[in-house]
Amino acid sequence: ARLFTSSNMAKSKFEYVRNFETDDTCLRNCYIVVRLDGRNFHRFAGQHKFTKPNDNRALGLMSRSARSVMEELEDIVIAYGQSDEFSFVFKRSSTWFKRRASKLMTHVASQFSSSYVFYWKEFFEDQPLLYPPSFDGRVVLYPTNRNLKDYLSWRQADCHVNNLYNTVFWTLVQKGGLTTAQAEDRLKGTLAADKNEILFSEFDINYNNESAIHRKGTTFIWEKREETVIKRMKVPGEEEKDVPVTSSRRRVQSYHCDIIGDQFWEEHPRVLEDDDS
Amino acid sequence: ARLFTSSNMAKSKFEYVRNFETDDTCLRNCYIVVRLDGRNFHRFAGQHKFTKPNDNRALGLMSRSARSVMEELEDIVIAYGQSDEFSFVFKRSSTWFKRRASKLMTHVASQFSSSYVFYWKEFFEDQPLLYPPSFDGRVVLYPTNRNLKDYLSWRQADCHVNNLYNTVFWTLVQKGGLTTAQAEDRLKGTLAADKNEILFSEFDINYNNESAIHRKGTTFIWEKREETVIKRMKVPGEEEKDVPVTSSRRRVQSYHCDIIGDQFWEEHPRVLEDDDS
Amino acid sequence: ARLFTSSNMAKSKFEYVRNFETDDTCLRNCYIVVRLDGRNFHRFAGQHKFTKPNDNRALGLMSRSARSVMEELEDIVIAYGQSDEFSFVFKRSSTWFKRRASKLMTHVASQFSSSYVFYWKEFFEDQPLLYPPSFDGRVVLYPTNRNLKDYLSWRQADCHVNNLYNTVFWTLVQKGGLTTAQAEDRLKGTLAADKNEILFSEFDINYNNESAIHRKGTTFIWEKREETVIKRMKVPGEEEKDVPVTSSRRRVQSYHCDIIGDQFWEEHPRVLEDDDS
Amino acid sequence: ARLFTSSNMAKSKFEYVRNFETDDTCLRNCYIVVRLDGRNFHRFAGQHKFTKPNDNRALGLMSRSARSVMEELEDIVIAYGQSDEFSFVFKRSSTWFKRRASKLMTHVASQFSSSYVFYWKEFFEDQPLLYPPSFDGRVVLYPTNRNLKDYLSWRQADCHVNNLYNTVFWTLVQKGGLTTAQAEDRLKGTLAADKNEILFSEFDINYNNESAIHRKGTTFIWEKREETVIKRMKVPGEEEKDVPVTSSRRRVQSYHCDIIGDQFWEEHPRVLEDDDS
Repeated sequence: ARLFTSSNMAKSKFEYVRNFETDDTCLRNCYIVVRLDGRNFHRFAGQHKFTKPNDNRALGLMSRSARSVMEELEDIVIAYGQSDEFSFVFKRSSTWFKRRASKLMTHVASQFSSSYVFYWKEFFEDQPLLYPPSFDGRVVLYPTNRNLKDYLSWRQADCHVNNLYNTVFWTLVQKGGLTTAQAEDRLKGTLAADKNEILFSEFDINYNNESAIHRKGTTFIWEKREETVIKRMKVPGEEEKDVPVTSSRRRVQSYHCDIIGDQFWEEHPRVLEDDDS
Repeated sequence: ARLFTSSNMAKSKFEYVRNFETDDTCLRNCYIVVRLDGRNFHRFAGQHKFTKPNDNRALGLMSRSARSVMEELEDIVIAYGQSDEFSFVFKRSSTWFKRRASKLMTHVASQFSSSYVFYWKEFFEDQPLLYPPSFDGRVVLYPTNRNLKDYLSWRQADCHVNNLYNTVFWTLVQKGGLTTAQAEDRLKGTLAADKNEILFSEFDINYNNESAIHRKGTTFIWEKREETVIKRMKVPGEEEKDVPVTSSRRRVQSYHCDIIGDQFWEEHPRVLEDDDS
Repeated sequence: ARLFTSSNMAKSKFEYVRNFETDDTCLRNCYIVVRLDGRNFHRFAGQHKFTKPNDNRALGLMSRSARSVMEELEDIVIAYGQSDEFSFVFKRSSTWFKRRASKLMTHVASQFSSSYVFYWKEFFEDQPLLYPPSFDGRVVLYPTNRNLKDYLSWRQADCHVNNLYNTVFWTLVQKGGLTTAQAEDRLKGTLAADKNEILFSEFDINYNNESAIHRKGTTFIWEKREETVIKRMKVPGEEEKDVPVTSSRRRVQSYHCDIIGDQFWEEHPRVLEDDDS
Repeated sequence: ARLFTSSNMAKSKFEYVRNFETDDTCLRNCYIVVRLDGRNFHRFAGQHKFTKPNDNRALGLMSRSARSVMEELEDIVIAYGQSDEFSFVFKRSSTWFKRRASKLMTHVASQFSSSYVFYWKEFFEDQPLLYPPSFDGRVVLYPTNRNLKDYLSWRQADCHVNNLYNTVFWTLVQKGGLTTAQAEDRLKGTLAADKNEILFSEFDINYNNESAIHRKGTTFIWEKREETVIKRMKVPGEEEKDVPVTSSRRRVQSYHCDIIGDQFWEEHPRVLEDDDS
């Protein structure tokens, strides 16, 4: 019994260790970007028989998981993903988790990962998941709208460069009958124009007509929708009747379009807050 | 085609945004602790019908997920968990992910979360998982063995304080017929000794005989095991024959014992490196 | 001799300790503000017989020291000081010391402090400096022009609030014959309007006519000046002659004006870079 | 008057900018080292006619300034300096400035720099100080006694390597009649043993007999001294008489000895706290 009397005392004796935690609050008025990358996804893709150069089941599952993160964390104003990576942008004025970097990135990484396993079956059906996959994350801050757009442009340019390469590479292998080593050799030193030319002249493929989701990746933003439902209501002194009730609901909307140019941002002016608001 | 020629150039134009990443390398020669905590697990436990005060399926799943993390990240020398939290301790000399805090904590959070969903069915059988759960994490550094042991003691003391309270509380409700409000009232201001006394005199329960996993939580360490297998071998000039081959294999071992006192550490002297090695 | 052969080896054996340094690079594209505050300047002012409420020698020395910092560190675009504090703003694109916070703030603190002692005699003449004074510093980052201007406004508002209080307080003591305790009592709970009224109706002082340096503090910016000098030159095939040569020189210019409103910024549009440049 | 009523309100409107300050608390239970380095001291030494290879006036002034820092900041347990650098070690349990790195390093840099100018005349007499010099600083944390001693050993090994080189170099120039280029050439690729041999066989100099302050640098620690003073006292009922009163006073003591080996630490066991205290 003696032992137990002192249990709270014992706990308080050790509690000093809390002071070793350090503060990792993100600088105010900056966009907070959390980017996740799949770990060893090359191996994972092989083991789960992903189709080349793109597996629509895998891309669908990535997007489903990203949507799950976005719906959980409402301060995310835009998310962009391609291949096995996804970036989530918290609004610059966000105070989620008191802007603590560690909480933000672990929550995103955790929600994304559990969703990936949870929704696996919806996308992969008979292909069983062999082991729990993992993603690592990081936090990067961007002070201005220009910097943030340039970050997203950087990721979309990366999507373009990789997808063009992969498209030509696998076309050479799958339709051209080259070995992977030969295909690699063939593409060494080629520019984007050369790669487009190979696709067009040798395989009659116009790269611009390839699937937008592969060329442009996936962008999520919140959109307001007016929704009208009929409700049966009773006003005092009147008879009960059907009344149309309109309300505005925010929902996550996906795009597979260019976000490097101005058009997307002009069409969705409310995604970013002004630098000097 | 013009567009594509410049795709690598376009990418490099945006690449400056990489410089906004900041270095979060953990101080050398310190233990790196990553602690995960379940998010909204009170609600999650209710929705998934966890038994009170402890649900062995849930504890088993937490441990299974922790083991999955530990097996993926071999530099974790000890892990300790209780309730909906788990702490993972990287050895002080670890260079995993170049000691980058963000990589370490997101990888742990991700691997744990995907494992939690992946192994759910093994523990919960007919109870379906309703939605993907999430955990948040943090990194704390401890410079000395004393500090690290005090951290682990703090978590185990927390386990003890909470479990004693919950055990009495739910005994009063489930066996004593009190409402939760009455039980709360009854326990207000009681010390550990009082709680033990209630269990013992009113319900004939000796708290010390309660399940160790509930009272002490779960500790994982690596242990070396000698394993002998018989291999059929052929030495030149001799006939092929069966030879016993002994090799030493590390494997994760679990304990549900006191880690506050010295005994555990004396019995496992290799878990921690010397402060001045 | 044996000993010496190994001296470089000995050094390299210890060199691992360099890896304990952590990176404290300031986030790109943010203004870097270094603010210095005098340590124990209340005591220092008393011991060196500073006049109340303002000592022009002390303010002059602060400004001289700040100018010395600004001339050494050309990436400082604006500095603002009042009382025993001075803030230095590095331009958002600065790469001085690779934006390492520790280097920036210690260099500023060091240069300011050595200048303060070096120039003491120019301002205090017969009043000897009794001991070396010290200042402490900090670094704060501001992502946008709005945030930076608000920071400077905050310091100037602080100057105003304190100087108005001190002016009335010391007028009540020096001209009104009150004790300091009585003066404190008299001012308890008064608003700015009340304080102005006391000055005006009891002492015939219009606060707005008080010295601008006391009311507004000191702002330093860089200004370009055209300078024309006559140089004797010889062009081949011509006789040597006097030629006027005009060049533009940057120099530090001081202001004692309002920097909260827009006027100052409109008159000096080049001090700040655009948020989205 | 309207304007003034709102001055406190105006200030509070801007006060949000305080939240942009980030926490830079040093990890608990680690030694905090602040190292200062002279900026452009090569040029400074030339302009102020420092003698080569060592200028005792300059070394004396560095030490005097370091002593001034140590006496101001009592939590510094040891300081070590050589050439134009000085390291200050705060005890691992220090709570000065709440362990805020920025405050610690700027205060040290400031106190050192103002002292350097303040005490200049005591050491340089007729050589006037031409301009205010500056030092930059950094903070490094060390978790264990081993790491801290290795840090100090690293600095002393650096002192040894540089001083041996400089001693031979300037002896070749000043006594051997070589140009600086010839001396540099002569020393290219030589080991410590070779350098000792040059000094001994060509100039009859035993390096070990050179001044300890040049070979070993300067170490400061706190020492307790018993001091007995005679005080005239009057006890009630007795006559006034002289009484010896002994008190213990801490004072800063300097050493120019080896701190790489164990002897120094064994002779001064109280300088460092135990790792596991």
